[in-house]
Amino acid sequence: MTPTNHQIRLAARPEGEPKAEDFELTTEPVPDPGPGQFTVQISHISLDPAMRGWMSDRPSYIEPVKLGEVMRAGAVGRVVASAHDGFAVGEHVSGMFGVQEYALSDGRGVAKVDPALAPLPTYLGALGMTGLTAYFGLLDVGRLAEGDTVVVSGAAGAVGSVAGQIARIKGCRTIGIAGGPQKCRWLTEELGFDAAIDYKAQNVAAALRELAPDAVDVYFDNVGGEILDAVLTRLARGARVVICGAISQYNSEQARGPANYLSLLVNRASMTGMIVFDFAARYGEATAELAGWLRSGQLIAREQVVDGGVADFRDVLMKLFAGENTGKLVLELSHA
Amino acid sequence: MTPTNHQIRLAARPEGEPKAEDFELTTEPVPDPGPGQFTVQISHISLDPAMRGWMSDRPSYIEPVKLGEVMRAGAVGRVVASAHDGFAVGEHVSGMFGVQEYALSDGRGVAKVDPALAPLPTYLGALGMTGLTAYFGLLDVGRLAEGDTVVVSGAAGAVGSVAGQIARIKGCRTIGIAGGPQKCRWLTEELGFDAAIDYKAQNVAAALRELAPDAVDVYFDNVGGEILDAVLTRLARGARVVICGAISQYNSEQARGPANYLSLLVNRASMTGMIVFDFAARYGEATAELAGWLRSGQLIAREQVVDGGVADFRDVLMKLFAGENTGKLVLELSHA
Repeated sequence: MTPTNHQIRLAARPEGEPKAEDFELTTEPVPDPGPGQFTVQISHISLDPAMRGWMSDRPSYIEPVKLGEVMRAGAVGRVVASAHDGFAVGEHVSGMFGVQEYALSDGRGVAKVDPALAPLPTYLGALGMTGLTAYFGLLDVGRLAEGDTVVVSGAAGAVGSVAGQIARIKGCRTIGIAGGPQKCRWLTEELGFDAAIDYKAQNVAAALRELAPDAVDVYFDNVGGEILDAVLTRLARGARVVICGAISQYNSEQARGPANYLSLLVNRASMTGMIVFDFAARYGEATAELAGWLRSGQLIAREQVVDGGVADFRDVLMKLFAGENTGKLVLELSHA
Repeated sequence: MTPTNHQIRLAARPEGEPKAEDFELTTEPVPDPGPGQFTVQISHISLDPAMRGWMSDRPSYIEPVKLGEVMRAGAVGRVVASAHDGFAVGEHVSGMFGVQEYALSDGRGVAKVDPALAPLPTYLGALGMTGLTAYFGLLDVGRLAEGDTVVVSGAAGAVGSVAGQIARIKGCRTIGIAGGPQKCRWLTEELGFDAAIDYKAQNVAAALRELAPDAVDVYFDNVGGEILDAVLTRLARGARVVICGAISQYNSEQARGPANYLSLLVNRASMTGMIVFDFAARYGEATAELAGWLRSGQLIAREQVVDGGVADFRDVLMKLFAGENTGKLVLELSHA
């Protein structure tokens, strides 16, 4: 029996929330590597809010996924066949392998990962793009300084939970915003945040007035919408707002603008967008520092691993937009 | 007859557009200077969009004008009585003297000005806070570089007209956005802007697509609202948006947020607020450079001077919000 490769392809550009019909499950034979190529059997697929943007054909920082193409996704897996000098059968690798069971690669953009150092899903989380996004967003774009008051939204999410911990490690007062008492407890009791705000139960601006009486020096925003507006009312002079994402807006046809943006003027503050790819030249140093914090126990990596097949991709992705995950959401493929 | 001092005091906090009843005209004797003080007879009063903010008691970069207080305003005038060693009768001075005919001063925040070098109203415009705001906003906050494509809104206004000319002097492609063909012609034919967009007649985003095919490196925003949103769709990678003001929003109870702010993320761009007061230590060097450009004819200063009394303050201020002025709007007081 020839092994088959199940794949999720983009069938239509979603309007609003992605629907089942926007994707197509296809089957083809597992590809054999040509010269300079290797085949990866994918074990874990990364679920990211940014995926919603990749499905749209609005101008963006990266080409949209074409209709009929395998859906773009970060993933880790194991080399199962190779005609590439640099990658041997049995090695574990991480790359943009897509929502499928097997991927063919020429090695570009692929990194080797060591399952003895960290569990494979961690290479999609704290030691992957997720951790790097938190790292560069906070330290470079946010120009974090010791003693700053730092607020992170989506704080129980993949990037937010790492960002808040980096702020804590760097000696900042760290306040997380998340949905629900369970996530908030996790932030303060396990991750060492100084405080957490449950945006579903609390008035964010009022809570910040109490928890950050000296106002907010760095705001790391993953959500946009009302929460961004609430934090804007509490900026310190010279504050830096890092726009990493806006998950509350991705399924809207028209984003809601931050009505309180004139707080930037009053407080001589800045709002800056970031894309982790711009820091590719420094991934090595950042990963080394993140790995060191993981080893020493200063940084806790948490992945929420959902078992399933590629056919479950859309359902798992929707968990992100529903805020159901704590930590990095990963789809673990069960290969029959 | 003792000379009297007519003054405009803030009587109520305006809701929306300031109304006549929000101000009170009062009369008192011209104050005699005590030791270390001098009396200024005010000849020209500066009209600024920022005044609207000073009338509100929302938290801001400066204390609001108190109810019953003389309305805050920049002004120039002549010393008519002095018990201050540093200021002699007959000297011309510039400072925050308020909307009144005479002001008492202890010299703090007051600069001497020379009517032989430039007409007095210019010290409220290109050689005053207006010119300094354009200078630091563009060069420091906007980090202008030769060859950049620069867009200025409110380009026929006081700050905008100077900002655009500085961009041109610094070797940038300069596009102004203004209301009406007359203002637009002034920008291109007299001030040397490369192009102008009449936002009342043209689609700003479409016009920018044509006029700035390589997108916008620096956007100097004085207006906010729809125009800010339109320019956000045309940002270059790494663009700098300078938030200097938002005149379209000042009379609204709730500002409209820039719905396209996620363009900051896609383009790794920043939006930064500025207040000229932060650059006070460098006013001297900036004024010297601005004065040099004026002398050489590279910079054209234009003031729209309205004759009247302090009682006309509100009516003249409303010209700003109606976009009726070209260049710096100044109220010239006719002393009987």
